Amino acid sequence: MTPKHRILRLLRDEGPLSRAELGDRLELPRTRVAVELERLMAVPLVHEAGPAASRGGRRSTLVELHPGIRFAGIDLGVTSIDVEITDGRLEPVAAFSEASDIRSGPKTVLSRVGEILVKLKDEGAYERLNGIGIGVPGPVSFRDGVPVSPPIMPGWDRYPVRELLTREYGCPVVVDNDVNIMAMGERCAGVARSAENVLFVKIGSGVGCGIFIGGELYRGPDGCAGDIGHIQVEPDDPICTCGNIGCLEALFSGIALERDATAAGRSGTSLALAQRLAAQGSVTAKDVAECAADGDTTATRLIRDGGGRLGGVLAGLVSFINPSMIVIGGGLAGLGHVLLGEVRSAVYRRSLPLATGNLPVVLSELGARAGVAGASFLASDFAFAEAAS
Amino acid sequence: MTPKHRILRLLRDEGPLSRAELGDRLELPRTRVAVELERLMAVPLVHEAGPAASRGGRRSTLVELHPGIRFAGIDLGVTSIDVEITDGRLEPVAAFSEASDIRSGPKTVLSRVGEILVKLKDEGAYERLNGIGIGVPGPVSFRDGVPVSPPIMPGWDRYPVRELLTREYGCPVVVDNDVNIMAMGERCAGVARSAENVLFVKIGSGVGCGIFIGGELYRGPDGCAGDIGHIQVEPDDPICTCGNIGCLEALFSGIALERDATAAGRSGTSLALAQRLAAQGSVTAKDVAECAADGDTTATRLIRDGGGRLGGVLAGLVSFINPSMIVIGGGLAGLGHVLLGEVRSAVYRRSLPLATGNLPVVLSELGARAGVAGASFLASDFAFAEAAS
Repeated sequence: MTPKHRILRLLRDEGPLSRAELGDRLELPRTRVAVELERLMAVPLVHEAGPAASRGGRRSTLVELHPGIRFAGIDLGVTSIDVEITDGRLEPVAAFSEASDIRSGPKTVLSRVGEILVKLKDEGAYERLNGIGIGVPGPVSFRDGVPVSPPIMPGWDRYPVRELLTREYGCPVVVDNDVNIMAMGERCAGVARSAENVLFVKIGSGVGCGIFIGGELYRGPDGCAGDIGHIQVEPDDPICTCGNIGCLEALFSGIALERDATAAGRSGTSLALAQRLAAQGSVTAKDVAECAADGDTTATRLIRDGGGRLGGVLAGLVSFINPSMIVIGGGLAGLGHVLLGEVRSAVYRRSLPLATGNLPVVLSELGARAGVAGASFLASDFAFAEAAS
Repeated sequence: MTPKHRILRLLRDEGPLSRAELGDRLELPRTRVAVELERLMAVPLVHEAGPAASRGGRRSTLVELHPGIRFAGIDLGVTSIDVEITDGRLEPVAAFSEASDIRSGPKTVLSRVGEILVKLKDEGAYERLNGIGIGVPGPVSFRDGVPVSPPIMPGWDRYPVRELLTREYGCPVVVDNDVNIMAMGERCAGVARSAENVLFVKIGSGVGCGIFIGGELYRGPDGCAGDIGHIQVEPDDPICTCGNIGCLEALFSGIALERDATAAGRSGTSLALAQRLAAQGSVTAKDVAECAADGDTTATRLIRDGGGRLGGVLAGLVSFINPSMIVIGGGLAGLGHVLLGEVRSAVYRRSLPLATGNLPVVLSELGARAGVAGASFLASDFAFAEAAS
């Protein structure tokens, strides 16, 4: 990492620092710091922020990231678009979310993203963007910035997402899997800030896992590491969208839970779910969580069964990779402590005591913000690296 | 890594080099190379080996690792001791193997290791050892050099293996899990030489996995990564030695295969196994392999069932970690291509096509030598790091 890159990251992570502190922290001579800052002020990425508190001797000046720096974090879900604009320190400046259908194809979805960005610009959230991070719900070639054979994203295969956005916005763009950007959010600004070996499990429409090893996001040689939704948990059924049988996400995921809750409502096994189904025409994971909280035993059983299945898979992964933390995120994390309890129970019962002795299994801290937060973080890393090269 | 350490590793991995080549390869000025070599010759770890081929201009001299350098690689299995003495380039100089029982406790086993080392010394294999690597069949605190709560090694828990051997032999000693040293052997000198993200699966008395990520052995924060023998594959039975139900190694491992083959012989399901059982009093994995090769369908079925179970677990791990190679080693790798076929079939059928497109699933190249080869490699790394610090 070049000195410029290190200066930018330090100011992002710690805020305004005096020139003297910068030199001390980066172990650089003051003259070198002055030269690098001069260049960063010319861009402008850095900005003088008045005199620093005296440390004795000649008073140093504070520097900070330029207040006009803006990153866009974009999280494309299967059924949603979330956009957040942050400043250089990754503090949110503006945000916008709406329902969307990833299956409507890249042209439709990305043109809607464009409209949202224009709207946020018109509202004064930014003048120009310094970097964009975008997550998509499928496998991505991180190097090429394109989705690769995404199973539920018709029309997106190898669509040049990074290239098109780079051309349109004239800034560095980074494209990653939606689970990876959420994992990145929790690792940089959420509950996993101090953990090095983290499994971030997203349970949304599908199920996936972001993996941090030694503090670094691990994507695997083909970029598809963490695809735990298709680990087999039952030998005979149901058939999964991937064509295999008994996959985890065919048994427990947003889609599976809605299917099972609808069945419980239709058959009358659950009176509470039947009432909601009659009133709303459909039931969601949120209905299941609310019915369970109101004491509906069928709803509670649906959550516990799902948590047990997920926990069984995670127990195996704990034996395999010996993580230092597991974070449960995504929409179904809203099932809360009933879900968490089952997952914990399975992991603590099934894995080697040596591996679980110091293993926290916790819920996401950032919730629905995890994806956009991680995407902005990735965008800032790329933009700073490019500006500093 | 210090220049001295880099010189030692380069001479280990590539053999004799001229002073000029050393400088070029390490991007160090010739005067610096000369100073470092002088120090390494004084130890002595490095040695002059005559004039190098002319590259024009003043002729350079060849240097190589000192011919007296010796490392000991020790692989303690559940039922065996393997020892290999290598030179500085990790070429075998002498080896010795015998049956042993890890359950006879650390004093008995390590004093037998001592006798073997004395015998090899008396036979002229070495004068003094520069480093020792030792693998044990259970979890190890790599930092402390002690086994930690090993389930099948009574008396070994926190036994100071490294401390005692260091005191006795006056050289750097490194203690690791037996699966990790075998994985290290295949990665450094075997079939996985050019792969960065490798799963090395040992199927011996138990089942375990060595994990390379980004070229580095991954042990996990508690040192127990790779404990895949206790991943659950059946919900109801059998009870495993760990107390849980349906663990992989309770269904497929050396011990499980002997149990099942004995049952098949006793019940007469397999005539071939019954004959061997009558003649020998017991049957082993080797008998199963031979009976299968002779066309015994029960023996073949035992291997295929086991391979299918192992393959099912590996398919899940492939979806999770997206490795670039899987190596099957340990005693049961002797079941050969019938086993390998079943494992491949399960992995290729169950995992994401993106993850298996370029994924070789192969048998160990070093076979029974993998452990001692990896242990010597680890020993050399530690000894060189210590000598260069």
